Amino acid sequence: MTKRIGRATVAFQSPPSVLSFANIGGKFEGQGPLRQYFDELSEDSFFGEKTWEQGESAMQKRVFHNALTKAGLDSAQLDYILAGDLLNQCIGTSFGLRDSNVPFFGLYGACSTMGESLSLAAMLIDGGFASYAAALTSSHFCTAERQYRMPVPYGNQRTPTAQWTATAAGCTILGRDGPGPYITHATCGKIVDKGIADVNNMGAAMAPAAYSTLSTFFRETGTSPRDYDLILTGDLGELGHAIVLDFFRRDGLDLTGNYQDCGMLLYDRKNQDMHAGASGCGCSASVLNGYLLSGMRAGKWKKIVLAPTGALLSPTSSFQGESIPSICHAVCISAQK
Amino acid sequence: MTKRIGRATVAFQSPPSVLSFANIGGKFEGQGPLRQYFDELSEDSFFGEKTWEQGESAMQKRVFHNALTKAGLDSAQLDYILAGDLLNQCIGTSFGLRDSNVPFFGLYGACSTMGESLSLAAMLIDGGFASYAAALTSSHFCTAERQYRMPVPYGNQRTPTAQWTATAAGCTILGRDGPGPYITHATCGKIVDKGIADVNNMGAAMAPAAYSTLSTFFRETGTSPRDYDLILTGDLGELGHAIVLDFFRRDGLDLTGNYQDCGMLLYDRKNQDMHAGASGCGCSASVLNGYLLSGMRAGKWKKIVLAPTGALLSPTSSFQGESIPSICHAVCISAQK
Repeated sequence: MTKRIGRATVAFQSPPSVLSFANIGGKFEGQGPLRQYFDELSEDSFFGEKTWEQGESAMQKRVFHNALTKAGLDSAQLDYILAGDLLNQCIGTSFGLRDSNVPFFGLYGACSTMGESLSLAAMLIDGGFASYAAALTSSHFCTAERQYRMPVPYGNQRTPTAQWTATAAGCTILGRDGPGPYITHATCGKIVDKGIADVNNMGAAMAPAAYSTLSTFFRETGTSPRDYDLILTGDLGELGHAIVLDFFRRDGLDLTGNYQDCGMLLYDRKNQDMHAGASGCGCSASVLNGYLLSGMRAGKWKKIVLAPTGALLSPTSSFQGESIPSICHAVCISAQK
Repeated sequence: MTKRIGRATVAFQSPPSVLSFANIGGKFEGQGPLRQYFDELSEDSFFGEKTWEQGESAMQKRVFHNALTKAGLDSAQLDYILAGDLLNQCIGTSFGLRDSNVPFFGLYGACSTMGESLSLAAMLIDGGFASYAAALTSSHFCTAERQYRMPVPYGNQRTPTAQWTATAAGCTILGRDGPGPYITHATCGKIVDKGIADVNNMGAAMAPAAYSTLSTFFRETGTSPRDYDLILTGDLGELGHAIVLDFFRRDGLDLTGNYQDCGMLLYDRKNQDMHAGASGCGCSASVLNGYLLSGMRAGKWKKIVLAPTGALLSPTSSFQGESIPSICHAVCISAQK
């Protein structure tokens, strides 16, 4: 029996349930419109550690333990952790989770990691390999700036299409049974590269991947965008969001009513000068594991599609003149199994 | 029904079959004792490309297409690719596979990636989510040197415990049914960090992870090392191999008869000056997808445990004084289901 309903989409036989979720943010996330949906907010960008990288690890450690506690689970009951981050060799994750003592699969999906980790966690549970699994990721403005762009103290100018890497992390604990909401479908993205090479315009680079995965998702599930209360990409920002709207408009589909982007929700677009919006693995992770999942539990939305997008470049590939390959992993989250 | 037989081990209900495998190596791999087990060997360390990073991507692209051709499959029939590499943001993989047009899950397991990708590929197949999946990874001496250590032209001196990053890649195609050998079990590693901080002694840093995963594997499968024709770690090299032997000796188990390390097999330890042996994701990937799997098909070994190890550090974490977290993912590969 295959659970595959199309080229890239699986329908879970027993949709795994969200058992708990937790998030954490930094100073600017705490000044944004979603501040009330964070479990923890820190004015200290080091999160009590000596370096920003260690601070990012501390965020992962805290959301992991917080989510586990909320689920009423001990780490010894957790079957797998699936996690990754943006840092070289994913050190935010490996150092954040090195004391967890839980079987661990490391992922690299750039800012699509929340979608990738949820998809795989749901598959491991529905496939009979796990009862409980954690999906988590993080990003940090200061670690990302000095790795991808310029050391923060340089204060270099940002272009209008640039986005602001969220200092945030989020963790979801999934289980075989539970109160919901449930992961009902997962569409695994293909790498899409339309030749965009401007590293200050990730929205344009990633929008084709989002369109590819979302249109595949709708086609293979036999649904239309109107069947969902909310369709949410990860961190395309204003420009990427507009491009996705435009792509669907060409297909005769109007997504203006129910399509949003986590990167446009995290900060106040008037009063916080974040240019095109938020980015980073922690953007969709913190929006999901706070605003979205608490909203679903409160009945605000019954059925959503979360489609985090990732840009699979490195500074080295850009220095070598390469364009930006991107990917998008979508999951359908529903109040009903 | 759970397929989980212990804290970290799953037993596949319908063990996925190896359908095909392919590998590629560089100049030094072609001068080593396993030269006859490579599909392709290149004297050109650029593999026809302009940069070493693009060369590494070319290796992944070639082994992927070669393995797919050997399996008699078209990329449109392949359900998933699971892959990653050592480079920052895994660009060896994302650029190597960007034209593949196959649903893709990116992994980061450092040099354990071959074990991680095989484990997850087997789970996706046995879980009913895929009929065919590819597991692959690569490494390249020159890309690794300039990223982790010093630009190659500096010709810096290496310590006796240092290893030589293999310029190699390997790809396995798994399918639901096939001629074997079969992936029967997978033990997912936990992150282990015993405080080793010497970046020129990866063998010592990773040996505790190998011991942790292998001893878990034996305990949870209710087997002993003597039940296997070959037990093979990924790239511990001479020192790490000796440490693992010593750890098991303390448990009263003598592994000297059937325990080897891919890092000790790839190069000629007398005539090639590779110090403690080979390392890199491509080490276990190329040894598996050549020497090992062809040997199993030829009946040389009936049942093996492959346990690639990875060091989850980055230059940044080492500069910040951190020790080296490590991981090991083991799979049991058997001629019988």
